[in-house]
Amino acid sequence: MSETLELRKLIASGSTVALAKAITLAESSLKEHRTRAEALLKELLPISGNSLRLGISGPPGVGKSSFIEALGLKLIASGCKVAVLAVDPTSPVTGGSILGDKTRMLNLANHKNAYIRPSPSSGVQGGVARRTRESIILCEAAGYNIVLIETVGVGQSDIAVSEMTDFFIQLHQPKSGDELQGIKKGASEFADFILVTKADGDLKDAADIAKTELEQSFHYLADGRRSPEILAISAKTDLGINDLVQKIRSLESKVKGEGAFELRRRKQQSDWFDEEISIQLDQRLRESRTFKSEFEKHTDSIFEGQEIAPVAARILIDTIFKSV
Amino acid sequence: MSETLELRKLIASGSTVALAKAITLAESSLKEHRTRAEALLKELLPISGNSLRLGISGPPGVGKSSFIEALGLKLIASGCKVAVLAVDPTSPVTGGSILGDKTRMLNLANHKNAYIRPSPSSGVQGGVARRTRESIILCEAAGYNIVLIETVGVGQSDIAVSEMTDFFIQLHQPKSGDELQGIKKGASEFADFILVTKADGDLKDAADIAKTELEQSFHYLADGRRSPEILAISAKTDLGINDLVQKIRSLESKVKGEGAFELRRRKQQSDWFDEEISIQLDQRLRESRTFKSEFEKHTDSIFEGQEIAPVAARILIDTIFKSV
Repeated sequence: MSETLELRKLIASGSTVALAKAITLAESSLKEHRTRAEALLKELLPISGNSLRLGISGPPGVGKSSFIEALGLKLIASGCKVAVLAVDPTSPVTGGSILGDKTRMLNLANHKNAYIRPSPSSGVQGGVARRTRESIILCEAAGYNIVLIETVGVGQSDIAVSEMTDFFIQLHQPKSGDELQGIKKGASEFADFILVTKADGDLKDAADIAKTELEQSFHYLADGRRSPEILAISAKTDLGINDLVQKIRSLESKVKGEGAFELRRRKQQSDWFDEEISIQLDQRLRESRTFKSEFEKHTDSIFEGQEIAPVAARILIDTIFKSV
Repeated sequence: MSETLELRKLIASGSTVALAKAITLAESSLKEHRTRAEALLKELLPISGNSLRLGISGPPGVGKSSFIEALGLKLIASGCKVAVLAVDPTSPVTGGSILGDKTRMLNLANHKNAYIRPSPSSGVQGGVARRTRESIILCEAAGYNIVLIETVGVGQSDIAVSEMTDFFIQLHQPKSGDELQGIKKGASEFADFILVTKADGDLKDAADIAKTELEQSFHYLADGRRSPEILAISAKTDLGINDLVQKIRSLESKVKGEGAFELRRRKQQSDWFDEEISIQLDQRLRESRTFKSEFEKHTDSIFEGQEIAPVAARILIDTIFKSV
């Protein structure tokens, strides 16, 4: 039996060892690994797609790990298998990962119906978000019917995660006032749920106030988009977690009934295609024989102040296209 | 006299109207505008480069506008001309800009030696960071010897701004504990200065504690990189702003003496070249005659579950390269 076929069978039977191996294969930049990963993905495609994909975002310190653990355990209690992936805007300096820390969600990590995968290393060409789409397929093929994808902060990684998930959950500190401006106009534009965390003990009141303020600010957002659901939650006391699960399930039914779910899945696929075209095209160009010498020539004249980068880039691309 | 030549003369003489016009030209996606912008940039290149470029980052609510105003006025008082640009990870949903709000820094905006440019609209192809490099050159040619570039939060926009500036300043809320983990390992990896804001009134103590905690955490960062300078500042009372200006100037002298400044400028230029190659190549491909029909064909088979995106992308690129 070929290795790919064996791996496929093991994944389909729910082996986490095989799943981990397959994700590592998919994350690899080695050509041979890529070929095998793509063959495997194609085999597994028919048994994938059967999960609810949830993006979870929030700044460091907001209580993301505690929330993911609380939500994950609740979903498992309702009969689900839960996979957790991380998309980390990995530092260009140290390559260090700030997410996907299993030690912060031990109860979930140790549960047989959960699989937690830390964020990929910075060696992944084209950004760490790229391979996460493949990890989702692999997790689904292994029987995980909930895939949680965590990310941090505003900006590109939030956008990337919202483009590969069905619903987007944004976590918010129990504070109010000035900061609301940011959350209202920023990443929460594509949030389906906004959760005010730490609604327990000393912060309970602050969380409730923040929730009300958020509700009011979205009330006046009269541009036709669906307002996000806003809840105050506590991972410590479990407050709001049941309610959230019910609201997620009811939104799921609603958008599936309307056909919007299927449309969103198609959008996820065409976004993926678009992204792969851009990344692979760039790699292809830079591997071409003419590239290196042309690149060095133009770099020199840029350094000498004789050319500006946009013009040099245009001339370089012209030359390469002619030489192909 | 040609329009470009006239614009060049007006910019070089310090006209803010001409500067604003040139930046708008550079931000335009219209082919004719691009050609003119590039000709203008090439003309102005010899009189550009003579500024200190400072990146300023921090989450919404941290007091970025107040800080920029305080710093800008201080620099003007010392004889500088200050330009403020914004790089905004513009929302894919509303295209709304959350930065560059002149009304938040009226004293600076109204000063004759300051020029504030809001972030470009979302129409700029290839991301809003792209044209900021050109705006920097234009501002320098107009005589601004300090260029402040503001951005928000962690992630790609921070990385982009750090790649186009000489020093990077990160603003931090006067809070401590859990959140330090994020700032230490996150974007502050490339910060030269970390400022704890709002060190006045009720928050003075909290700011001082956060400063101490940050200092301690960086003290143990023994990987050979230069630790960032950490200061507590207040835009309200002006606390720490003079000190910051002195520290920036002394760091400038130091890195210029070591040759590190020149190396960093070269890195800025080659990063720009790299970025332009990637963006323009992508545009060129998608404009090609074969692209549209091939793209639709593969999209169909992806939707039908017959192909996975990475493989479809490879086949598509092969086809186009063969047809060129």
